Formats: sequence, C-alpha cells, structure tokens
Amino acid sequence: MAAYRPLDSHSVIDYLRATPSLADVLDLDAPMHAREVGDGNLNQVFIVENGTSDKSLVVKQALPYLRVAGESWPLTRERMRFETQALLKHNELAPGLVPQVYHYDEAMSLVVMENLSHLEVMRRPLVARKRFPHFADHISTFLARTLFFTSDFYLTGLEKKALQAQFINPHLCKIQEDFVFTNPFMDSPENRWNPLLNAEVQAVRRNSALKLALAEMKASYMTHAEALIHSDLHTGSIMANEETTKVIDPEFAFCGPMGFDIGAVLENLVLNYLSHFAHTPDVDTRKEYQAYLLGLIREIWTQFAAKFEALWLENNRGELMPAKYWDYPGGEEAFAEFRRRTLAHILRETAGHGGAKMLRRMMGIVSVWDITSIADLAQRAVAERLAIRIGSRWVMERNAIHSIDDLIGMVCEEAECTG
Amino acid sequence: MAAYRPLDSHSVIDYLRATPSLADVLDLDAPMHAREVGDGNLNQVFIVENGTSDKSLVVKQALPYLRVAGESWPLTRERMRFETQALLKHNELAPGLVPQVYHYDEAMSLVVMENLSHLEVMRRPLVARKRFPHFADHISTFLARTLFFTSDFYLTGLEKKALQAQFINPHLCKIQEDFVFTNPFMDSPENRWNPLLNAEVQAVRRNSALKLALAEMKASYMTHAEALIHSDLHTGSIMANEETTKVIDPEFAFCGPMGFDIGAVLENLVLNYLSHFAHTPDVDTRKEYQAYLLGLIREIWTQFAAKFEALWLENNRGELMPAKYWDYPGGEEAFAEFRRRTLAHILRETAGHGGAKMLRRMMGIVSVWDITSIADLAQRAVAERLAIRIGSRWVMERNAIHSIDDLIGMVCEEAECTG
Repeated sequence: MAAYRPLDSHSVIDYLRATPSLADVLDLDAPMHAREVGDGNLNQVFIVENGTSDKSLVVKQALPYLRVAGESWPLTRERMRFETQALLKHNELAPGLVPQVYHYDEAMSLVVMENLSHLEVMRRPLVARKRFPHFADHISTFLARTLFFTSDFYLTGLEKKALQAQFINPHLCKIQEDFVFTNPFMDSPENRWNPLLNAEVQAVRRNSALKLALAEMKASYMTHAEALIHSDLHTGSIMANEETTKVIDPEFAFCGPMGFDIGAVLENLVLNYLSHFAHTPDVDTRKEYQAYLLGLIREIWTQFAAKFEALWLENNRGELMPAKYWDYPGGEEAFAEFRRRTLAHILRETAGHGGAKMLRRMMGIVSVWDITSIADLAQRAVAERLAIRIGSRWVMERNAIHSIDDLIGMVCEEAECTG
Repeated sequence: MAAYRPLDSHSVIDYLRATPSLADVLDLDAPMHAREVGDGNLNQVFIVENGTSDKSLVVKQALPYLRVAGESWPLTRERMRFETQALLKHNELAPGLVPQVYHYDEAMSLVVMENLSHLEVMRRPLVARKRFPHFADHISTFLARTLFFTSDFYLTGLEKKALQAQFINPHLCKIQEDFVFTNPFMDSPENRWNPLLNAEVQAVRRNSALKLALAEMKASYMTHAEALIHSDLHTGSIMANEETTKVIDPEFAFCGPMGFDIGAVLENLVLNYLSHFAHTPDVDTRKEYQAYLLGLIREIWTQFAAKFEALWLENNRGELMPAKYWDYPGGEEAFAEFRRRTLAHILRETAGHGGAKMLRRMMGIVSVWDITSIADLAQRAVAERLAIRIGSRWVMERNAIHSIDDLIGMVCEEAECTG
C-alpha cells in the first residue's frame, strides 16, 4: 500500500484515474473537475465530476492537522475507519438510505462515495417549513433495519460479539458520554447558553431527580450493547429531498442502546417544532406545520415499531431467543409479549435518550441551527424554555411512557398545542 | 518464541529449569518432582514440588486434542488466554483471593501458578457441613473489588472500552448463553433431570411468565457490560480452608452484568442448603447448618454492598458519574441515592441471574455435586422441587426484591425454614 499523502484538487483526479475499480461510477479517461467543499477541519471533501456526463462522486480524506482541540491524527484516521465500516454495514442493511461506498483506501485514510449534492441537510428546509413526504417511511425503515439486523434478535451470539469487537469506538463514545450526558449538566468551560436562561440552566444542574435520571441514561449508553447504533442521528446527519433520504456521517457508530438513535430523530423534530414559535409568526401557518411535525414523530415511531416487529417475525434466527424456546402451547403468545415488552423498552429509552439530547442542546457545547438561527434572544428563550421542560419530562417520566401518544402528549402539554 | 509442544512429567521439569524468572518460587537447580493431576480433557495440570523444600507450583497447559464435543484447539488456547488475563487482573484487584500467576507462555499455551493443593474445592466440605469462618468476608471482598474496579464507577470511558475489547469472549459467552439461559428451558438433547421431576420440568418449559423473565435475564447477560465478571463463580470455582479463600478458573470472564457473579455464589449456597434435606437427616443438625448457610448469604450480600459503596466513595474517579456532576447543593444526597439505586439494581439482578442458574442446574446439561450426590431419587427430588420453586421466584419476582431479607425470605417460605 502506498503511504499517506494529502490530496488536492489536482492530485485527487490523478488518484481516481489510477483506481480502475471506479470505472463503473466515473469515466476515468474523460475530463474531470474536482472542487474541495469540506469544512477543512478534520477532513477534506472533494466533489469530482465528469465534464462530459452527469457522473460524479465524492472523495473524503482525513487530514493530518491538529486544528481541533483534543483531536489528533491517529484519532482522525480511526474516525474515518469507523465511518467507512459503518457506511458499508448500513449499505448492506438499508441500501438506498445511505451514500454508496465505491472505494476505501485505509493507507490514504480516504473513502470514495456517492455524491449527494442534489440533497439538502434537513435542518434548513425544516426551518423553511418544507415537507418530506417519504421521510417517515424512509427513516423508520433505516432505523428498523439497521437496529434489528445488528441486534441479538437477529444475530447469533458469536456474530454479535464479532460486530461489537469491530465497533469498539472509545474516543467517539467519550465525546457523546461527556457532551450529551455529563458536562452540560455541571459547570464546564465549553458550555454555552442563552443568558436569558441562566435560572433554568442552574435549576437543571441542581435538579436531583433529573440528574439521577440522566445518570441512568448515561449508564444505558455506556453499558447496553443492544445493536449497532449510528449514535449521532440528528437532522444534521440526514440529507433529503422530496423523494430521497440519506443518513450520513456514522463515525460515532458502536453497539449501544437502540433508543439513542430513535430519540435523536424525534427530539430534533421537537426542537424544530419549538423553533417555529419564532421562525413562523403567523399562527395558522405555524400550527399547521407544527401539526405536520408531530404527525411525523407519530408516524416514525409507529412505522418503526411495525417494521421492527415484522422483521423479527420474518427473520427470527437470533439467539435472544431461538424460535424453539417459544415452541410450546402458549409460546406464540409469550413471544408476542416478548416483542411487545421489547418495543415498550425501546420507547422508554427513546424518551430518555431523546430528552437527554434535547436538554444538552440548550446548555452544552453546541446547540442546533433551528434554535441558534433565532436572532432575538427573548424569542429564542421561548423555544428553549419549552425544550428544557419537555426534555426534562422525557427523561424523568420515561417509565410512564407507554405509547407514542404519551411522548407527544408531553410536547403538547408544555407547548399548549392543539395538535 | 518456541513452538508449542505438549509437556509430560519429565519435560515439564526441563521447561521450568529453563525459566529463570521462576527462581523466586522454586529452587530450579534442586531436585524436582512433577505429577499430572488434571482431568485430561482440555488441559493438563502438573503439580511440581522441590524435594528438598516445601516449595511447589502448578503448571497448566492447554492440550491440542479434540476430546470434547464442539471444542477445538484454537478455542482451547483462547480459553487459556482468557483465564490467564483474568487471573492477572484478579491478582491486581483482589490479591490473596486468587492463585498467583508466576509465568505465562502464550506460544506454549501454558501458565505457571500458585499450588493450591492445601485447599479444598468448596462443594464437598459444604455437603459435609464444614464451616468457613472467613468465607463471607473473603468472597464479598473479591466481588466488591473485582466488580467495582472494572466498572464505569471507577474506570474512565476509555479504560473501560479497552478492558471490554480485551475480554470479548464469544465462545465462552455462548456456552453460558445456551446452557444457563436457553437450552434447559426447551427440548434439547443434552438436558438431564431426575425422572421424578418430569411434571415440574415440563411446567417450567410452559410457564410463559417465567420464560419471559428468563429471556430478560439473557438479554442482560448478552448486552449489559457493567463490569469484568468471573462468569462461572459457583462453589466449584472456589477453593478454601478455614483461613484462606481462592477463586479459580475465570476463563469465562467478560464484561457483563455484576449480578451474575453474586447470584452464582448465593444460588450455590441455596442448592447446598436444600441438599441437606437429604444429606443431613438429623433435624437439629440440619437446621443449625442451614441457618449457618442463610447467615452466609445474608453476610455476603451485606458485606458486598458495604464494601462496594466504600470503594466507590474512596475511589470516585470513574465517569459514571464524575464527582463534579454531584457538586451542587443537594448533590451529595443525590449521589448517595445513585449508589443506593445502583446496589438495588445489582440485588435484583443477583436474584434474577441466581434464579436462572438455580433452575438450569435442575434441568440442564449439568447439575451440582451437592444434589447429584443424593443417591435416592425421591430424596433428591425434595431438594430439586424446592430449587425449582425458589429459582422461579427469584427470577419472576426479582423486581419486588428490595433487601437481602426479601431474597432469603423466598427460600424460607418455600423451604419452611425457621430462619
């Protein structure tokens, strides 16, 4: 294998021309044009297009620079490896819902993948009240398939441990352990919040019932290896248009609690919902879009649960439990009850992890664009106070959540919605 | 490194003489005598003694034979590696309570360790109503120290993941997953039970509430990486005399649920308790020893809980949660509540895993000598029926267990003991 060298917009073309396995996706002998579109911190990202056809692809390469605090070159390369192996796994399990991987070069810390520039990262269009008619279907399929097929309900014990070993991802886990479950809820220099929320932030930090519940969610994240989770599945990790949905950036992937992924999707929709109190002053327009968002939340969970259970029934080869274990008079009902209890557990965890993530966006290292794009701090505080109340309830009252309506009900009760 | 070759009672002496690092524990130039004392299946075990002093040691070497169904040479060698690295970890965390490791030779699949032939495996002396005045103290120290110091309450997130990666132990886990949580409770050719228990065994297999609870315990075993557990801590894995206790054979070690280890110790004491209905016909003698055993159970849990909490307070450097997280008015009480909830969780899991293991000993691949040494099948069935009732309650009613007295109470209610 060649040694590592960082590419530029010229050498990337030479690299691609010398990689014959890419001939299916790019005309390697035809004219090509490359432009760097990354944020230049950890990775560089090139979009490479054939001038003579509509063929194109993306080259993502880890950079050996120390531009971000606490980051180092071996970690950046490791991150690229986790992203690539998760992308390959997601392509296998949820084809069409993630960018295709065309080529991986470990020595070059480089992955060549599908160009998604016809799609938009979801945050901005959601703030612009755009609708995604297939999103609930697509994301529930992604969640059901990636989680079910990497769980002990599908895998054998040996297969699961091999997957777990492949995805032991300590440094990326630590980022979430610190910045989702810990630092936002105590004094830590990187925390940022709306100064109008001082009282609320201090109240969260001193709320023992909430802190205990958050500690339980962190224990779940650190120790419950239920399935291979994306582990950073906010709406900034989803690109979409009206027809297509693609989940990107899975470098945090490891075997963790399923509810963390579902909770990430749902809480980001709630934060977007709350942001419209500022972004959409017209009451009717706002209510209509907010009702759409709550409908999305309901649909995503309902479809996820139905698809997860259908996959289980159709692919019941895992060792938790083997089909034969339920082979007795009454066993079919017991297996149905086991599936029901499993989904009830995932819903409680969805609320707990989603609530923790909602809270950390209000008082941790980084908020979400839906909220930070509200220029007026008083208007922003309206949404943020509601997020703190809803997030706190999702975490603390998660064991009283028995249906998606219970979870949505907490949004409605706090936001006084009619939906 | 030299290639693998199986040793015999002559070549083992040559091997030791050529290993100068052992000079502290054996006089390498003095006369030596070696005898093979293993069961000859997977490993051979030599006791090597100096003729001229009381110095001695044990050599354990994996054997490349296919004598046991489903076993193979790479797995046997892997097993030796897990045993050795767990022994080293246990020596570090609980010195004096495990055999010392003097030397490890991976190429030879060989470990040289402390000779424990002055101690007895606990099962037979417990059947003979022997008492171990330091056992509760020793085993609770072993449990508290090995579990606390390998948990997220002590380790950083990065340290814990490194430990977890080192102890991904798929084949040995699968043995427990199959033979503790699954096969005993369905039709499987290796299952053995007292023919007088046909009705009870069939009833367990058809008891949906119990099967659901057992599935939940298996999920805990497969996915809850709380700490490095021994994972086979029955009284056949403990050697003792009146002064000393040594935990042996940790080849099943992996990061799993803490309650599995504590449950193993306690349920084996219950099985021994029940065996005395046959082994000790004299009522007063029996009641006295049974009361001693229940006292042991109470002491082991009580001391474990006190030691675990004391270690936590004295070594609060883990990331679940960092000390600073509880640094606010009322935080000290919240941290105390977190410790209380954690120990309550471990007790429920102790009951659940202990109950599952008690049940599997009645109807799975292998029982325990305490019970199988009862020659009369009708007498044996008395103990076994009680074990099935107690084990079932420990599993199904575990969430109603709030103190060690609740757990012991179920033994007393079923066995009609006077306590």
